[in-house]
Amino acid sequence: MNGSVIGLIEFLQPYVTEHKQNLVEEVLEQRTRHITVVLENIYHPHNASAVVRSCDCFGVQDVHVIEGHNEYNINPYVVRGSAKWISIHKYPLNEESENSCFVQLKNQGYKLIGTTPDASYKSIRDIDINTKIAFVFGTEETGLSKYAMEQMDDFAHIPMHGFTESFNLSVSAAICLYESTNKMRASGVAWKLSDIEKKMLRLEWYKNIIARSDVLEREYLRINNKTP
Amino acid sequence: MNGSVIGLIEFLQPYVTEHKQNLVEEVLEQRTRHITVVLENIYHPHNASAVVRSCDCFGVQDVHVIEGHNEYNINPYVVRGSAKWISIHKYPLNEESENSCFVQLKNQGYKLIGTTPDASYKSIRDIDINTKIAFVFGTEETGLSKYAMEQMDDFAHIPMHGFTESFNLSVSAAICLYESTNKMRASGVAWKLSDIEKKMLRLEWYKNIIARSDVLEREYLRINNKTP
Repeated sequence: MNGSVIGLIEFLQPYVTEHKQNLVEEVLEQRTRHITVVLENIYHPHNASAVVRSCDCFGVQDVHVIEGHNEYNINPYVVRGSAKWISIHKYPLNEESENSCFVQLKNQGYKLIGTTPDASYKSIRDIDINTKIAFVFGTEETGLSKYAMEQMDDFAHIPMHGFTESFNLSVSAAICLYESTNKMRASGVAWKLSDIEKKMLRLEWYKNIIARSDVLEREYLRINNKTP
Repeated sequence: MNGSVIGLIEFLQPYVTEHKQNLVEEVLEQRTRHITVVLENIYHPHNASAVVRSCDCFGVQDVHVIEGHNEYNINPYVVRGSAKWISIHKYPLNEESENSCFVQLKNQGYKLIGTTPDASYKSIRDIDINTKIAFVFGTEETGLSKYAMEQMDDFAHIPMHGFTESFNLSVSAAICLYESTNKMRASGVAWKLSDIEKKMLRLEWYKNIIARSDVLEREYLRINNKTP
């Protein structure tokens, strides 16, 4: 599998300009799975789309979307193509499926941190970034579901000084990511992708960059006598 | 003028619950005009509204809106009532009026900082908060106008690590405010409102809190033989 990934990357590479190849390598070097985001039942497509865009900008590779009544639809204006570079993992909204999202993240070593306007919890500035972190954001109107609340390992709030009791959802996510990725990058923690993860993403991104890469991929498989 | 402001505040105060009075004082203590925001010709109401909401949350009192083709309309869902607590200053989009916005801010001691995705400018983390700062944000599609660019004292960028070349506008503004207000609050700089500024806002906010405060205000003026 790994061998054929490398073969296909090499086959596709000449179709990617040198400029784009360099960009892919730069972005891969800055990419992380040390921090991730879970969105539970977000109503407004522009909010979910702005979070995906922020993740790309901050170098956060994975976004987990628990869909519920609100199917995750991309707002192309807000997302600005960023969804092509982010791994979006979708789950339906029910306890079984949500549980699979949370259990899977916990098994991967993530600490689930629910964001809350409640100032009795620790500030986002005091979060320990030595463990892997999944920030979990709930519905715009009512926040995290009772079920999700029970699954959290910890909670954190963004300090606020006004009358309004919460930030816009996409703003809230961006501040959590800004604060934690800055701290992570300045730390000695091992936050970069592994070589295998980089290879898989390099292949995926090359396919995104090349027009009709599916035709090239079939050609590669035909030449190498592999079943498409 | 100051005397009648104090008189009217005292007249209105019994109509504001103690809880709300305390909240007003807490918010006033955290309010600042050391940092402000200018929005030049923003297309999407949810962006401008999210910026106003963020300003309230970060304790930033003034937002300057240069309107242009896009009249500033509040999106009530996004703004969540925050516009009631923020001083929104509007200017039409033409060089004369924009100039009056920029000149006025400069005369008040503000350094105009244009935000740009161009990483050759300093990072938002390296901004000097010892002087008053006005962050200026341009249209979502094309950024600041050529005219506005020429008026800036400096530029700053938010470090980015992905393929997408800019953050969503409201995200961008929130990160600038998060970074700079944190630094300001931790510094020894004199960022708080003056007593007179607090009085004027206290009066305005009491009027916002009290239902039909206009009736009470007319009654106060009648009792004190002042022309309404």
